[in-house]
Amino acid sequence: MDLVNHQFRLAARPVGLPKPSDWQYTEEPVTEPGDGEVLIKILYISLDPAMRGWMNDGRSYIAPVGVGDVMRALAGGEVIASNHPDVAVGDCVTGLLGVQEYAVANGGAVMKVDTSQAPLEVYLGTLGMPGMTAYFGLLDIGRPQDGETVVVSGAAGAVGGVVGQIAKLKGARAVGIAGGSEKCAYILEELGFDAAIDYKAENVNAALHEHCPRGIDVYFDNVGGDILDAALARLSRNARVVLCGAISQYNATGAMKGPSNYMSLLVNHASMTGFVVSDYGDRYADGAREMAEWLAAGKLKSREDIASGLERFPDTLLRLFKGENTGKLVLEVAGD
Amino acid sequence: MDLVNHQFRLAARPVGLPKPSDWQYTEEPVTEPGDGEVLIKILYISLDPAMRGWMNDGRSYIAPVGVGDVMRALAGGEVIASNHPDVAVGDCVTGLLGVQEYAVANGGAVMKVDTSQAPLEVYLGTLGMPGMTAYFGLLDIGRPQDGETVVVSGAAGAVGGVVGQIAKLKGARAVGIAGGSEKCAYILEELGFDAAIDYKAENVNAALHEHCPRGIDVYFDNVGGDILDAALARLSRNARVVLCGAISQYNATGAMKGPSNYMSLLVNHASMTGFVVSDYGDRYADGAREMAEWLAAGKLKSREDIASGLERFPDTLLRLFKGENTGKLVLEVAGD
Repeated sequence: MDLVNHQFRLAARPVGLPKPSDWQYTEEPVTEPGDGEVLIKILYISLDPAMRGWMNDGRSYIAPVGVGDVMRALAGGEVIASNHPDVAVGDCVTGLLGVQEYAVANGGAVMKVDTSQAPLEVYLGTLGMPGMTAYFGLLDIGRPQDGETVVVSGAAGAVGGVVGQIAKLKGARAVGIAGGSEKCAYILEELGFDAAIDYKAENVNAALHEHCPRGIDVYFDNVGGDILDAALARLSRNARVVLCGAISQYNATGAMKGPSNYMSLLVNHASMTGFVVSDYGDRYADGAREMAEWLAAGKLKSREDIASGLERFPDTLLRLFKGENTGKLVLEVAGD
Repeated sequence: MDLVNHQFRLAARPVGLPKPSDWQYTEEPVTEPGDGEVLIKILYISLDPAMRGWMNDGRSYIAPVGVGDVMRALAGGEVIASNHPDVAVGDCVTGLLGVQEYAVANGGAVMKVDTSQAPLEVYLGTLGMPGMTAYFGLLDIGRPQDGETVVVSGAAGAVGGVVGQIAKLKGARAVGIAGGSEKCAYILEELGFDAAIDYKAENVNAALHEHCPRGIDVYFDNVGGDILDAALARLSRNARVVLCGAISQYNATGAMKGPSNYMSLLVNHASMTGFVVSDYGDRYADGAREMAEWLAAGKLKSREDIASGLERFPDTLLRLFKGENTGKLVLEVAGD
């Protein structure tokens, strides 16, 4: 095989927003898959807020990406060579394949997906990690009840949009916080949220007061910072705060801003619980099945925001942190 | 009755630590109890960190004390006149009787206590609100399991000392954080904690690392601030943080310090849950019975730190916020 693989490697640990010099664009020959391995031609690379955390040194739920290593990313592609009995050439798979054009992976470490059910890129979003994040975080930790009010930040993003839709499926009211009138229109009109708060144009405290007259029963937090504080100030008794992310803080160069209003948990007998989707690895298949059913039945809508060209990876990743994506941000790797 | 009642009233809402001019010392004749009411001669006044919060304006779990009102306090005393069928002259009772020498209260709003089982002042501490706070916060929210590590701050205080002892009764390791070598010696030698950390003399992060080699399974927080952050940084997987108070922050004049390390909840699938003891009002009797049994059996030790003289109330209250008390701080009201 005379295939050439291009890759983005972590050149330096970023301080604040990743800058061009934090990346190295490299080229090398594609290697043959070894025993039990498969060779995958990558078609779509998932861009996720969690990637920023993986670039930092220090103890976390997953080891950091090493300087000089191919940047870690979820991706989907087609198997073009296989030495694994359960994976065939032509299969579509997803996995932690990295920011590159070709990946060699253990056949047992990738997930086969059925592209007759949904396009490959949907398996990186609503039927993939972000969808499972929304599903388990909301249902296992948030536990919305009929008639309760669920508020989600980052509501037009890959996770937030699914959170609001599942809240509605469970009989709750869904209030979304997003940046800009287009995103707010999207979650109201396409996704069926009951209310939208444009944090760039509105006073979030006042808007939460207006849209959550009986308080917030479940707050699903993707952003941290001032919006988390505003939601804490509006909790109802026995409220559940689901800590999923803190994208407003990931590129902070000073100390992380802790939630000043955390004592609202005390006076409201409320809880704040964190998770990462891998905590639910053993229940992933059940979640994926139910989500696929909802999607097939039209009960769940999915939108992907697709950029094209591997070389655009550094700039496209920044769109996440600038809040420029609506729906799941995916990079389509240009074909040969 | 020609009895005279002296009282401390809230003269102004404090900014920071309450100062003498925030109080008004008043004198008035004792009034007769009305229908269903009882007249109580107060013997002991409980001094609790929560009192600082009651002095602030704003929405909380209980209405603020009005400016000009008698300061709210739990207290214990003897009934000297009764118009309530269930309460007799000579009964000892506790209740929200206020910072004063005599109180008229509804007979149904006070709790009769058995001073043949324990001295009256113990019903303001280990067998009263602080004891119930420790009991329900630790057992209902913390849920320590055999062999787990429980860390409690304010460990030499009325709540913290009981938390550590109940943790031990449940088979957990108890690590206490307290200020000063005397307090540390007290919790180790008298209360039977497994380890003590003197936050005034030690690096709390390093000491938690040393004494919690497998991480913190339950952190019971009475103090907030930097110590909460240190504990968050050391959580084990599925850890439970019990938010009971934040005494380090109650007199802050700027914004409350939120816990910068709250994302440790996320990576550890951990939770932080708040409560006030009144959330458990319907189970209070069960808790009080079990605590009384433990105390009678010598499984639980109780210490009271008793100051004397109503006129010393303002200074004695400050001892709480300066961390000067060991055990339950109580003000004995001088007899006539």
